[in-house]
Amino acid sequence: MASLSDIGVSAAFNLLSAFIFLLAFALLRIQPFNDRVYFPKWYLRGLRNSPMHTGAFVGKVVNLDFRSYLKFLNWMPDALKMPESDLIEHAGLDSAVYLRIYVIGLKIFVPVTLLSLVVLAPVNYTNNTLEALKVTFSKIDKLSISNIHLGSSRFWAHIVMEYAFTFWACFVLYKEYARVTAMRLQFMASERRRPDQFTVLVRNVPPDADESVSELVEHFFLVNHPDHYLTHQVVYNANKLAKLVKEKEKKQNWLDYYQLRYSRNQDARPMTKTGFLGLFGEKVDAIDYSIAEIERLAKDIAEERERLDQDPKCIMPAAFVSFKTRWGAAVCAQTHQTRNPTIWLTEWAPEPRDVYWPNLAIPYVHLSIRRLIISVSFFFLTFFFMIPIAFVQSLASIEGIEKSAPFLKPVVEMRFIKSVLQGFLPGLALKLFLIFLPTILMMMSKFEGFEAISALERRSASRYYIFNFVNVFLGSVVAGSAFEQLHTYLHSSANKIFVTIGVAIPMKATFFITYIMVDGWAGIAGEILRLKPLIIYHLKNFFLVKTEKDREEAMDAGSIGFDTGEPQIQFYVLLGFVYAVVTPILLPFILVFFAFSYLVYRHQIINVYNQEYESAAAFWPDVHGRIIGAMVFSQLLLMGLLSTKHAASSTPFLIALPILTLWFHRFCKGRFEPAFKTYPLQDLQEAMMKDTLERARDPNFNLKGYLQTAYIHPMFKNDDEDDETFENKLEMENVLVPTKRSSRRNTPAPSKMSSGSPPKHIDI
Amino acid sequence: MASLSDIGVSAAFNLLSAFIFLLAFALLRIQPFNDRVYFPKWYLRGLRNSPMHTGAFVGKVVNLDFRSYLKFLNWMPDALKMPESDLIEHAGLDSAVYLRIYVIGLKIFVPVTLLSLVVLAPVNYTNNTLEALKVTFSKIDKLSISNIHLGSSRFWAHIVMEYAFTFWACFVLYKEYARVTAMRLQFMASERRRPDQFTVLVRNVPPDADESVSELVEHFFLVNHPDHYLTHQVVYNANKLAKLVKEKEKKQNWLDYYQLRYSRNQDARPMTKTGFLGLFGEKVDAIDYSIAEIERLAKDIAEERERLDQDPKCIMPAAFVSFKTRWGAAVCAQTHQTRNPTIWLTEWAPEPRDVYWPNLAIPYVHLSIRRLIISVSFFFLTFFFMIPIAFVQSLASIEGIEKSAPFLKPVVEMRFIKSVLQGFLPGLALKLFLIFLPTILMMMSKFEGFEAISALERRSASRYYIFNFVNVFLGSVVAGSAFEQLHTYLHSSANKIFVTIGVAIPMKATFFITYIMVDGWAGIAGEILRLKPLIIYHLKNFFLVKTEKDREEAMDAGSIGFDTGEPQIQFYVLLGFVYAVVTPILLPFILVFFAFSYLVYRHQIINVYNQEYESAAAFWPDVHGRIIGAMVFSQLLLMGLLSTKHAASSTPFLIALPILTLWFHRFCKGRFEPAFKTYPLQDLQEAMMKDTLERARDPNFNLKGYLQTAYIHPMFKNDDEDDETFENKLEMENVLVPTKRSSRRNTPAPSKMSSGSPPKHIDI
Repeated sequence: MASLSDIGVSAAFNLLSAFIFLLAFALLRIQPFNDRVYFPKWYLRGLRNSPMHTGAFVGKVVNLDFRSYLKFLNWMPDALKMPESDLIEHAGLDSAVYLRIYVIGLKIFVPVTLLSLVVLAPVNYTNNTLEALKVTFSKIDKLSISNIHLGSSRFWAHIVMEYAFTFWACFVLYKEYARVTAMRLQFMASERRRPDQFTVLVRNVPPDADESVSELVEHFFLVNHPDHYLTHQVVYNANKLAKLVKEKEKKQNWLDYYQLRYSRNQDARPMTKTGFLGLFGEKVDAIDYSIAEIERLAKDIAEERERLDQDPKCIMPAAFVSFKTRWGAAVCAQTHQTRNPTIWLTEWAPEPRDVYWPNLAIPYVHLSIRRLIISVSFFFLTFFFMIPIAFVQSLASIEGIEKSAPFLKPVVEMRFIKSVLQGFLPGLALKLFLIFLPTILMMMSKFEGFEAISALERRSASRYYIFNFVNVFLGSVVAGSAFEQLHTYLHSSANKIFVTIGVAIPMKATFFITYIMVDGWAGIAGEILRLKPLIIYHLKNFFLVKTEKDREEAMDAGSIGFDTGEPQIQFYVLLGFVYAVVTPILLPFILVFFAFSYLVYRHQIINVYNQEYESAAAFWPDVHGRIIGAMVFSQLLLMGLLSTKHAASSTPFLIALPILTLWFHRFCKGRFEPAFKTYPLQDLQEAMMKDTLERARDPNFNLKGYLQTAYIHPMFKNDDEDDETFENKLEMENVLVPTKRSSRRNTPAPSKMSSGSPPKHIDI
Repeated sequence: MASLSDIGVSAAFNLLSAFIFLLAFALLRIQPFNDRVYFPKWYLRGLRNSPMHTGAFVGKVVNLDFRSYLKFLNWMPDALKMPESDLIEHAGLDSAVYLRIYVIGLKIFVPVTLLSLVVLAPVNYTNNTLEALKVTFSKIDKLSISNIHLGSSRFWAHIVMEYAFTFWACFVLYKEYARVTAMRLQFMASERRRPDQFTVLVRNVPPDADESVSELVEHFFLVNHPDHYLTHQVVYNANKLAKLVKEKEKKQNWLDYYQLRYSRNQDARPMTKTGFLGLFGEKVDAIDYSIAEIERLAKDIAEERERLDQDPKCIMPAAFVSFKTRWGAAVCAQTHQTRNPTIWLTEWAPEPRDVYWPNLAIPYVHLSIRRLIISVSFFFLTFFFMIPIAFVQSLASIEGIEKSAPFLKPVVEMRFIKSVLQGFLPGLALKLFLIFLPTILMMMSKFEGFEAISALERRSASRYYIFNFVNVFLGSVVAGSAFEQLHTYLHSSANKIFVTIGVAIPMKATFFITYIMVDGWAGIAGEILRLKPLIIYHLKNFFLVKTEKDREEAMDAGSIGFDTGEPQIQFYVLLGFVYAVVTPILLPFILVFFAFSYLVYRHQIINVYNQEYESAAAFWPDVHGRIIGAMVFSQLLLMGLLSTKHAASSTPFLIALPILTLWFHRFCKGRFEPAFKTYPLQDLQEAMMKDTLERARDPNFNLKGYLQTAYIHPMFKNDDEDDETFENKLEMENVLVPTKRSSRRNTPAPSKMSSGSPPKHIDI
């Protein structure tokens, strides 16, 4: 066990590295040539222009104003200055509410830390149990619950404190949930006209022999929502087109690079090989080859567009249906359309930029199977991920390399390289896996079929949290791989599990303190430096950028990254609750994390991150739920721990806590969650009035035209001139098509639900 | 362990008692004086008249047609004759679908029984493990899985069969769910105009200083649903009135009884005492006393009515709001009204006769607290109910009686009485508790605050099932009280629990066979005899009945009793799944139960039970869910059992089963459950067309008048002439009330969600 001085050394080291990162950041950010790396948000909003246009050349690249070096920590107060309402205006509600997660951490844990240090630390410290046991122990252990002897009545202090912490946390959570709900509703009511307020996503349009999807949708909604239906937009399967366009862009980049190289050095035409990654195959003139490739792709793209235009198979059985009023859209989104609940599924359309296009065509049955597959895969990923990694590790050993590539043997056998490889390789596979884990989880969410990016990120976040909980938290507390743990848990009783973990908790305090400093302090400081975007921007700037537009494209603002950021916060919340009564000394470290990362992320949100979508804080129920989960888990652990301390008379008093906490959760769920699922009609009434006002103020506004182009696949929106004709075509298609059928009635026949096969028709 | 011949004796005995019940029933039902006991449904529907009016006196009372005695089992084919569509017409969809639960039992278990007996019974029987072990065993054990030796590859047969049974059961469940969903939607679409189709129940109307509840509701809906709002009906707190009316009725009954007695024996005026139950207090003339009491109560009732009329505190913050169209009601019921999701809660109104009036006024926060209280109480009831019963038992012992009532000592000490008491008393407390259990559970559901009788019954049913599962099933399999079991489960590992139960399962087969025969066979035969209603009817007939109307009131049709009947079926389904692969010989006994009780209940539904409400099969998701639960539980038990049989190589193949079953459940939930929660708009479209047609056909129909009186508290609907004035008053109240406020805006201010206290106003 680490002593206090070990912790001190570690803290100093991590503080130093954090300080170095901050210093580097402070220096780099005031250099004009890094401006687009550290202030992309302002460029994206059009509020900042390249500083390179003005002044002498040196001044353009390096900051010569020495006074600005003195104030290198100035960004901190700057980050705090912007009031929340401006922040919402500047970066969206999602970002503002995301910052509130850090604030909620501070709100809960500042009083908890104070109380815990004032009350529990002395209660623990003024014992001599550890001395009496004659075991080796550190100062930290003396401050922890381990220092209280068995059956002591001092445990009452811990139980009372646990109650106090729980009630305080619930109070804060309630206030915060209410505040976020109010902010969300306020935001949605006060907003300007947005296409998703008028639009509903319809999925699983049933196939019909007589009519195309577009006609079918039009007729269905004209019959079922005659007063409100305005227009619709079918969804094209443009995944292949998107791939081709992306490829063309890449080739264009290479062409730019070669042309730039040629213009700098006119002596030698750049050459390339046609094979894989330009490494194999025939050697050709790079510029000519790239031009030819781009032409070929342009032709392919044109052909694909043509195909999308004409082939009805490219039209997916889904559509964005827009209504004349918000009210009409709300009614359609929040009710069922037909008796068969698996066709004509309606839900609020995500924002246009939030739509994840490839997933729009998955039928209902597939969705449910995909969900099963992913649940099972995630279970295996969480508990058995060590197995393939161990396999890769065995391959990546020195013997493995020698076997698969004998010509490397002399190099590998060199003493220095051998030792490096031996120390480095086994960890590499694990490290790589952990780096790619968020990507893997995101791929799983995509496979599962969510149709909005925000939903993908929410699902990935919850998976990432579970993975961290099992593999980092439980894996550190109860040593052994997750798979071994699973085995243990299955073979030990329910209360035994909590006893096992609860008993191990106090001993792991120093480990988690170190973890917080490395991951929480230094890691966050690294976040602000943006090393990767910095390097990539300068590489692109040097090799590709010809025009100001290219430079704009080279800029990578990134986004908050809810799918990794939120689970990290939640992990610290979990640590906070677990250690609040056990080892109070851990809490200040968590407080530093919350405060520091709040500062950093506020700065980044203001200056750097680009907002990818606006879900109006739809993630808050998840955040709330995970905090509640952490509380209940910590209460159960404390029960487990106390039950081994011969404090039998006091333990039963803790049983009420998880019950009350879960009840509080249900209460909040009933109270606030509806606001995150549906729009209240009252708001829609207001919105209707606003609609009326807007119409009176701006009678010529073409709502139909506005909505008709809102949900066009991004591929069709791009620059080229083809699009216009395509859009025109879309518009023409939307002219009322007379129904082709004559024989059938105008009302739906009762659907045959008893047949197992998916229904073939819905007559409208 | 019981041998086959023991089972045979028990079967013979139970068959005999069932036969005696049936014979008694057959004889009693054809006697004209029992006609109202055995055919009340036809009287209630007005399709049958008292047979006592015609023929000679003896013929009126006793059936003299001897041929009818020969055909005493005729009721069985009669019960089956009525087709399902007529049954729905005759007794409602709920009853018809309730019978389908028995049918689903047959559909699942007939093929399972055949397969199991043909395949598994020989596989088990052709082993000699039990002989080799030299333990005592019966023929039944030889047919069970116990007879297969450890590590045998014959276990594969059981695993394959478990898969087959699961897939078959899921197939049947899917078909049945689809069928019931279609029936429900068909029923709702084809029905005549019903008030609940136009009406929404609004709860938690916020208090308002300026306006009464009625005005507030009117203005809110006029603003928010201007095109659809028709009328509304506030809810009165008439619980006290209901109590007074009930008391008056009781006194009236006594008066009738005394008058009848006096008219038969004119010599002595009947006397009574004024005290408790007529046992204590002053002796008075019974007829005069009763008349005086009735007059007093009539005055009280009039006063209470007056008070309800004038005191605004009697108006609850709830209202039934009716709309002009089904569409308008659907939109209001399926959306949220305001930003604060705890006020103006709307949901579909239950049928008028389904409303449970006393619960309409409970505010949201109370509901949530009540739910917590009831959850905790139910937990204690299930696991600790033996403690108070043991206490009562100790009091009710002979020593207890002697102590509390010393004067009884000589009686109690008599040898015969002593032995009877000793054998009888301890069981009495338990038996009484079990008899009152459904009532206790129903009281708990009522306390919890559901506002429809159907919802109360559904909740009671699920609690009754859980109680049976824990105390009857687990309590029989793993001996010991539920409390001891709880202790065991908490202290043993998850897989250990299933092993413990799984291993005990085969040994309990004979017990459960006996249980099925006593509870399932003889019990159901007792149900058809209706002994209790028979006796009560004849008592009332003798003492109270003066007119034909009195006789009608004396008739007690009863109802299906979903809250006890459905859990009983589910218990047998559970037994069926658990024993299907373990002891196949148990299955035929269950089949007999399903077939026989289907017959009996079909007969009772056609001839006896009165339909209390119509929920359009809203209970089906519960039924489906519990069957799935039983399947998953049986799969886990089989895994537990096989893991002790050294069949380690085959057990893992079972893991997929519960996962697939649960996935199937989720799939069905997504596919069908929406139809049980909301009305699809397509149906409403049809309904709208029907509305239009109806209006065209019957232009003078007063929908407003029709709906205005639909949701009046039953107390105000009763006979007396006061009501008319009261209804008139109600009608007058519904004339548009001009708003009293002037200063406030017409749009709602954003509600202050951050304040913890319930909001005081919602401005409309």
